[in-house]
Amino acid sequence: MISSAVLGIDVGGTSIKARLADAAGITCGEWREPTPIGDSSGERTAAVIRGMLEVARGERAVEAVGLVVPGIVDERSGVCIRAVNLGWLDVPVRDIVQSHIDVPLAFGQDVRAGALAECLTGAAAGVAGTVAFIPIGTGLASALIVEGFVMSSGGWAGEIGQVVISSGPHTGHRVEEIASAGGMAQRAGEASALAVAELVLRGDARATSIWNDGVAVLAEAMAWIFAVAAPDMFVLGGGLTEAGGLLLDPLEREFAARLPPTRPPVIARAVHGDAAAMIGATYLARRLLAAGDLP
Amino acid sequence: MISSAVLGIDVGGTSIKARLADAAGITCGEWREPTPIGDSSGERTAAVIRGMLEVARGERAVEAVGLVVPGIVDERSGVCIRAVNLGWLDVPVRDIVQSHIDVPLAFGQDVRAGALAECLTGAAAGVAGTVAFIPIGTGLASALIVEGFVMSSGGWAGEIGQVVISSGPHTGHRVEEIASAGGMAQRAGEASALAVAELVLRGDARATSIWNDGVAVLAEAMAWIFAVAAPDMFVLGGGLTEAGGLLLDPLEREFAARLPPTRPPVIARAVHGDAAAMIGATYLARRLLAAGDLP
Repeated sequence: MISSAVLGIDVGGTSIKARLADAAGITCGEWREPTPIGDSSGERTAAVIRGMLEVARGERAVEAVGLVVPGIVDERSGVCIRAVNLGWLDVPVRDIVQSHIDVPLAFGQDVRAGALAECLTGAAAGVAGTVAFIPIGTGLASALIVEGFVMSSGGWAGEIGQVVISSGPHTGHRVEEIASAGGMAQRAGEASALAVAELVLRGDARATSIWNDGVAVLAEAMAWIFAVAAPDMFVLGGGLTEAGGLLLDPLEREFAARLPPTRPPVIARAVHGDAAAMIGATYLARRLLAAGDLP
Repeated sequence: MISSAVLGIDVGGTSIKARLADAAGITCGEWREPTPIGDSSGERTAAVIRGMLEVARGERAVEAVGLVVPGIVDERSGVCIRAVNLGWLDVPVRDIVQSHIDVPLAFGQDVRAGALAECLTGAAAGVAGTVAFIPIGTGLASALIVEGFVMSSGGWAGEIGQVVISSGPHTGHRVEEIASAGGMAQRAGEASALAVAELVLRGDARATSIWNDGVAVLAEAMAWIFAVAAPDMFVLGGGLTEAGGLLLDPLEREFAARLPPTRPPVIARAVHGDAAAMIGATYLARRLLAAGDLP
């Protein structure tokens, strides 16, 4: 073992991803394990994490683990209040996982950790002020970083996908049913939103309608985020952004149509892709170690 | 002159209000002057403020002035980027006013100063976490205070009244045209939103429709604020809140209908009324003096 490192772990609905990063942030190893099914207590997930830590220790001495999980996550109490994908309800994840491992554990939420990664070393690196991160995936959520401070509000901030649409053709639907990648794919009966994008490029009318609906509702959410918090930059993540101009051009138009002349925010694609949350988890671990160095 | 004090000044569209507060925060005097009309440079407004300072000095030694103005206000640069009511466009208000007076000047925006007043000594006193303040007046704006930090984002945060409605019967209208007190009064052809409320209580169908529209759009704005930032408390200000349950009961229902089961925020009426911004201005002045005491 040449030098010490931290292990970032991102628990998702289907897999648990881990990245080992050395003191310079260089990746020294990546692993993936299936997420235990029906692990309502979090104990089996903790056991998988312990196993991944043991494997990582074959590569480097691990000084700390950074763990991020999805859903409504209160970083201060270390509790996952709700994660539908994992069947978690008020699970004290931090304490459970800490009891399985013998190095310090930093704990956070996946979207906010991804935002941190994009702010520190991604699309928003060097942007002072306010950054909004929106990963467009199976669901839709957001994170706000204000001058380096990650807004959580006890875990409830950023649930933009859960707003119930109250007028127009989608009344009664939640925003993420129309505007997430998963929602668009499901409405179109396709395997993915990129498959929907393919149909749009071929001129399919129904796919185009579903795509336009998604863009409009996403623009609506972004207009409200701007009205409330005025980010200098929106960073859009998730595979959907691979559609490029097919997504971003109409999105910028729909966004501008919902606001009066204003300081236009930059709308940028995320850099870290699916790894953002895991990379953010390594930063949380580093920050925990740095805080420990304080007098 | 018994003791020293600070002077808080709130520049509005029709009048400039000033409050002299001693070191304990007790009011020792209040004054009001008409806002100079067509003062696009800010110079005449500065002269009025200098005059108010001289008058206040007849009561107490004034250690600092806190000044708040409406519109899009960048606290850091001291510039009012846009205040439609005052005809101001990129006016360096802080420098102009400072050049007219010989005590330190703290500078801010009226809505955010009002939020500070409600958080320190008003409806949200003692609330840790996140507070959203929404004064419902001629227009509609909001301010977020997150653990004592007032979000500004260069002055652009909180312009919720400017979002253009994009579906339903009010498509193309801005939110404040439907949901502000001024907007409701104008739609109904009444002198004030409270006059509209009177008609609602008497069963007037048209007034009831306008009132319900306003409540629904306000609830929509609040649902988005909650989705983005998850305030622990909403503090509603402005004369409209005098309508009490006629406003708050349907508002809570409409708000709840737009969100899934969640940690319900408290929805409270503001305490400081029209004086909130002026009181906040005195706090800005006190804070400036306290910062000056630091090494």
